[in-house]
Amino acid sequence: MVAIKVGILGATGAVGQRFVEALANHPWFEITALAASERSAGKKYKEAVGWKLDTALPESVENIEISPVNPTAVNADVVFSALPADLAFTVEPEFAKAGFVVASNASSFRMEADFPLVIPEVNPEHLGLLEVQQDTRGWDGYIITNPNCSTIVMALTLKPLMHFGLETIQVATMQAISGAGFFGVPAMSIYDNVIPYIESEEQKMETETLKLLGEFNGSAIVPADIKVSASCHRVPVVDGHTEAIWAGMVDKPAPEEVREAFLKFDPKMEKLPSEPKKVLIVRDEIDRPQPRLDRNMGKGMSVSVGRIREGIRYIAMGHNTIRGAAGASVLNAELLHSMGKL
Amino acid sequence: MVAIKVGILGATGAVGQRFVEALANHPWFEITALAASERSAGKKYKEAVGWKLDTALPESVENIEISPVNPTAVNADVVFSALPADLAFTVEPEFAKAGFVVASNASSFRMEADFPLVIPEVNPEHLGLLEVQQDTRGWDGYIITNPNCSTIVMALTLKPLMHFGLETIQVATMQAISGAGFFGVPAMSIYDNVIPYIESEEQKMETETLKLLGEFNGSAIVPADIKVSASCHRVPVVDGHTEAIWAGMVDKPAPEEVREAFLKFDPKMEKLPSEPKKVLIVRDEIDRPQPRLDRNMGKGMSVSVGRIREGIRYIAMGHNTIRGAAGASVLNAELLHSMGKL
Amino acid sequence: MVAIKVGILGATGAVGQRFVEALANHPWFEITALAASERSAGKKYKEAVGWKLDTALPESVENIEISPVNPTAVNADVVFSALPADLAFTVEPEFAKAGFVVASNASSFRMEADFPLVIPEVNPEHLGLLEVQQDTRGWDGYIITNPNCSTIVMALTLKPLMHFGLETIQVATMQAISGAGFFGVPAMSIYDNVIPYIESEEQKMETETLKLLGEFNGSAIVPADIKVSASCHRVPVVDGHTEAIWAGMVDKPAPEEVREAFLKFDPKMEKLPSEPKKVLIVRDEIDRPQPRLDRNMGKGMSVSVGRIREGIRYIAMGHNTIRGAAGASVLNAELLHSMGKL
Amino acid sequence: MVAIKVGILGATGAVGQRFVEALANHPWFEITALAASERSAGKKYKEAVGWKLDTALPESVENIEISPVNPTAVNADVVFSALPADLAFTVEPEFAKAGFVVASNASSFRMEADFPLVIPEVNPEHLGLLEVQQDTRGWDGYIITNPNCSTIVMALTLKPLMHFGLETIQVATMQAISGAGFFGVPAMSIYDNVIPYIESEEQKMETETLKLLGEFNGSAIVPADIKVSASCHRVPVVDGHTEAIWAGMVDKPAPEEVREAFLKFDPKMEKLPSEPKKVLIVRDEIDRPQPRLDRNMGKGMSVSVGRIREGIRYIAMGHNTIRGAAGASVLNAELLHSMGKL
Repeated sequence: MVAIKVGILGATGAVGQRFVEALANHPWFEITALAASERSAGKKYKEAVGWKLDTALPESVENIEISPVNPTAVNADVVFSALPADLAFTVEPEFAKAGFVVASNASSFRMEADFPLVIPEVNPEHLGLLEVQQDTRGWDGYIITNPNCSTIVMALTLKPLMHFGLETIQVATMQAISGAGFFGVPAMSIYDNVIPYIESEEQKMETETLKLLGEFNGSAIVPADIKVSASCHRVPVVDGHTEAIWAGMVDKPAPEEVREAFLKFDPKMEKLPSEPKKVLIVRDEIDRPQPRLDRNMGKGMSVSVGRIREGIRYIAMGHNTIRGAAGASVLNAELLHSMGKL
Repeated sequence: MVAIKVGILGATGAVGQRFVEALANHPWFEITALAASERSAGKKYKEAVGWKLDTALPESVENIEISPVNPTAVNADVVFSALPADLAFTVEPEFAKAGFVVASNASSFRMEADFPLVIPEVNPEHLGLLEVQQDTRGWDGYIITNPNCSTIVMALTLKPLMHFGLETIQVATMQAISGAGFFGVPAMSIYDNVIPYIESEEQKMETETLKLLGEFNGSAIVPADIKVSASCHRVPVVDGHTEAIWAGMVDKPAPEEVREAFLKFDPKMEKLPSEPKKVLIVRDEIDRPQPRLDRNMGKGMSVSVGRIREGIRYIAMGHNTIRGAAGASVLNAELLHSMGKL
Repeated sequence: MVAIKVGILGATGAVGQRFVEALANHPWFEITALAASERSAGKKYKEAVGWKLDTALPESVENIEISPVNPTAVNADVVFSALPADLAFTVEPEFAKAGFVVASNASSFRMEADFPLVIPEVNPEHLGLLEVQQDTRGWDGYIITNPNCSTIVMALTLKPLMHFGLETIQVATMQAISGAGFFGVPAMSIYDNVIPYIESEEQKMETETLKLLGEFNGSAIVPADIKVSASCHRVPVVDGHTEAIWAGMVDKPAPEEVREAFLKFDPKMEKLPSEPKKVLIVRDEIDRPQPRLDRNMGKGMSVSVGRIREGIRYIAMGHNTIRGAAGASVLNAELLHSMGKL
Repeated sequence: MVAIKVGILGATGAVGQRFVEALANHPWFEITALAASERSAGKKYKEAVGWKLDTALPESVENIEISPVNPTAVNADVVFSALPADLAFTVEPEFAKAGFVVASNASSFRMEADFPLVIPEVNPEHLGLLEVQQDTRGWDGYIITNPNCSTIVMALTLKPLMHFGLETIQVATMQAISGAGFFGVPAMSIYDNVIPYIESEEQKMETETLKLLGEFNGSAIVPADIKVSASCHRVPVVDGHTEAIWAGMVDKPAPEEVREAFLKFDPKMEKLPSEPKKVLIVRDEIDRPQPRLDRNMGKGMSVSVGRIREGIRYIAMGHNTIRGAAGASVLNAELLHSMGKL
């Protein structure tokens, strides 16, 4: 099999590095382009990147020359976007127009009516929107988006609760510092501290969730009729978002029924390389999940749940820069490939 | 004025040291006894204590000889109890029987029908129970209790919301490690981590709050008709509990009305030495309150609130070992003194 | 007594805020000007500053209008400078020329031959250089500097060792994140980590120490004949620099003799308002000093020492933004005032 | 090839879990016994252990029944000991007497004259002592020890400096909290803090290093003629000991020569499964090595060095519970096996 050529836009940042990590030894994809800002363009990747992961920089990408973030300069068929939202807003359409498939982690287009916002285990049928998008926009390529990190973690636990008649969600997040990028949170701000505010985060959780859990009617997404109320907080944790969730459901299931629903959640997909063995890991210990202990489960692609109590209340936790960002985009691209859409 | 002689039971622990700090230069009280476990008894306080506060050990207590935790050995009229719950359960009644006033931070008797559970700014009228207690038990002294740390922080913000018809509370806490005492949380457990469980904490918040906000009918407390659902979590913060609170109210006040209610909250009390200038500090910044920046406001006795949003959702934060423990007991004793009950 | 009018240059940053804290209720000085960058100029201080100390912003400065950093705009007789080194290099001389006394925490001029680099308890006689400076430069005002934070902590412990024939120093520092300012260290860099490098820090310790401990011969400083070798590291601590020091001395004193020298160190000065009761606090516990427990001793102006062992090896620790920065400049100004030089 | 049956003594603790991780999928060894305290004995491993690593508990050991720490109860040929020193002192000889090979991480016998204290890349020839030990003690089995964690990290960097005429070492450590076990360091002690003391650690570094770098003369080890002076400190880091080292050498090599010596260090061994590709990784970045970024290099078995400066000063960093503990014992056992001594 010939590998599909992929590029990474915004390859030097926190999520960009996670893309490199996820794609450097991928069975289907081969990194052929790494794009970053003008400042880095022209340098070798190993010279431009301040590599901050605790795995070694993959040798296969060390000497790739950084391209500018420009469709004419990027040698690839698929691009993964870790661009900041404002830049993504102008650049990603240029790539789609030029025929690229764009798997984007940026927030710019998530809520656009003709852009699929997809988690493979939650709403793969929303990919039907791609045709709508291409028709509407007249693009050769297309853009597929994945949700915000904290939304992904939560949505994977809500999907199996839908059949209980999910109506209301209250969620209090305890989010990791890596979610703001390498330079996003000064140590003086977060050390020995909690910051009870993350810009736009609550709004993202409250809107993206409805689209994700909505129905595709052949031409558009009808958002789910759920009320989500979020309170988002930064805590001194490197990686892994922890979420305390209250789920109001018409059927008023007992905690044990919710636990069963989580255990049985086994979305039918073609086997994808980045898919974890278990998408939801149910922890029965009284004090789990915990970010430092559970964030790397399923190579960072599993979401762990626990403390399912009357209420219904429970805790969900997942790796924010893997499952919640780079891994999410890669899984989307894998899904598209398995459907013959790359 | 002759100072009232006070003792501290459990004087060497985390809360015990906060008692020493609060009482060492108190205008009304004088520390005349420091009681601790057999291991420490007989030693000078400075030798027995591993002093862990960032203020110097007060010279006035350095050479006090540690007493055993026993009414016959403690030279005082009032004792402040920082004892663990199981020990408090047997020891505190002995002190009350022997004629001591016991201001207890222990959880042992908080929910007992004839024991007042009091925050001076919230329910001073519950002190009427003391007479019931003395009648019932036949004690010369009595025991007054204060709530759990996370309950205190929350209850001070709920009191001014009562007139809106408070019905339901969801609260997600982000609690400091000092809440478990000096040795309660291993660094390996909490560093770079969140522990989504604190033993008995949710139950305490869900029951103590109802008693606190209940009505004293002359012989007993009729608990408030509110439903509290708590999810309690430990985060890597030294001091200061942060709480994300959803308050369901019949009147459905707008956020601005809630803010006004917090601002106007000004409980009428005799001026007490440990009372902060403002019991509730309303922060209008988008990212406050924060434990490291706000926990010491009002010498640790103020509770800070902020991020009042539709929902109604808001953030409350207070110092857990001062306002939430030692300071709470001291304030109760000051209230009793101002009422002539010491 | 009429208070001396003082201004703060760089009043909104980490050290600037410490200056405000130190000067807001000063018995001799009155803050009459707060200067900061163009971006802040014209705003009220409370609006321009992101106040990050855990004490409340002093009311007396809340409404002071921020001046530009310019001698014509600053209404004061003395200015304290918390400017970054490059800016200080051009601006401080303008102030001195215009007749201001400049007490500077910046590194720009510390090693200039005619600029006194002073710690009141170490080398007050170096103030004789001020006359040299004014003669050389033709300034009406003058500039006095204090050393780098880690140098101050160390030098205060070296001074009492000089009479043992101090020859060599090896020092490994464990420095707090506040030393880099509020935004200097990203949380992702330092959390669960040690960064074994701080720009220019080793060079500063190796050169400033020699000037500090040198002799003023009436016209210049003859540096001390000591060899200092430093290794500087950042650790996840908010405030307080800890230093492991090896001191090679001709007389080869025993640890107990070194301890005695520290205990006896009692520099003769006029009583200054910011001077701690004890400049060196000797801790005899096996595991002290520790930054979180000892950094606030003497209101942050004491340096704590301990673990004096054969070698001679010992640990020194002091508050880097108080004793090591703002407090150092204020103490210098107090010394000048007590000598009639303001 | 038939796998060698191995047991782990003290299998539930911090180092014990690292042994399980290292041995669960080992090409030569098979875990056939897990021994722990009476409290755990008889339970399944998965029930007895509070698994605290961020990798999943290996399925192959989940159901192994915990044995008591007793030679008659342990079904294995080789045992790895993670026992506390006092227990190891009595138990390990019983195992050796009963014919077991004991690869011990405990400190109990490291400095005993007839016990090899070995790092395979440093002093494999010291294994000659095993014969002396068996002769002296009359044991069928034997005990081999590895050094203390901080000593291992340092010694691996000293070995290549020996030919420069190494004479003196000063070392300041910044050690991770995992070095004290899961429960060894309370969060309240180390958070936002440095503890400048670790019991016995300095003594271990100062004595073990000399034995390690000493010569085996056929019957005993002649310690190296080096003077080591250590200052040991705990910092808030989960895993990874960082060490600032000054090395005094007769030849006074330039930093570049030292760098070359580190780069060329390539001990000749039979290829061992746990051996990293590079035992020393030289980092040329100005701010490396760093524990969070470099501790997992070589699966935790590489030591990283950097900042080689005049002095000679440099920084060494290694994973304390892998290279510095469990991995060290496993590598010793692998060396023995490759030499036909298991």
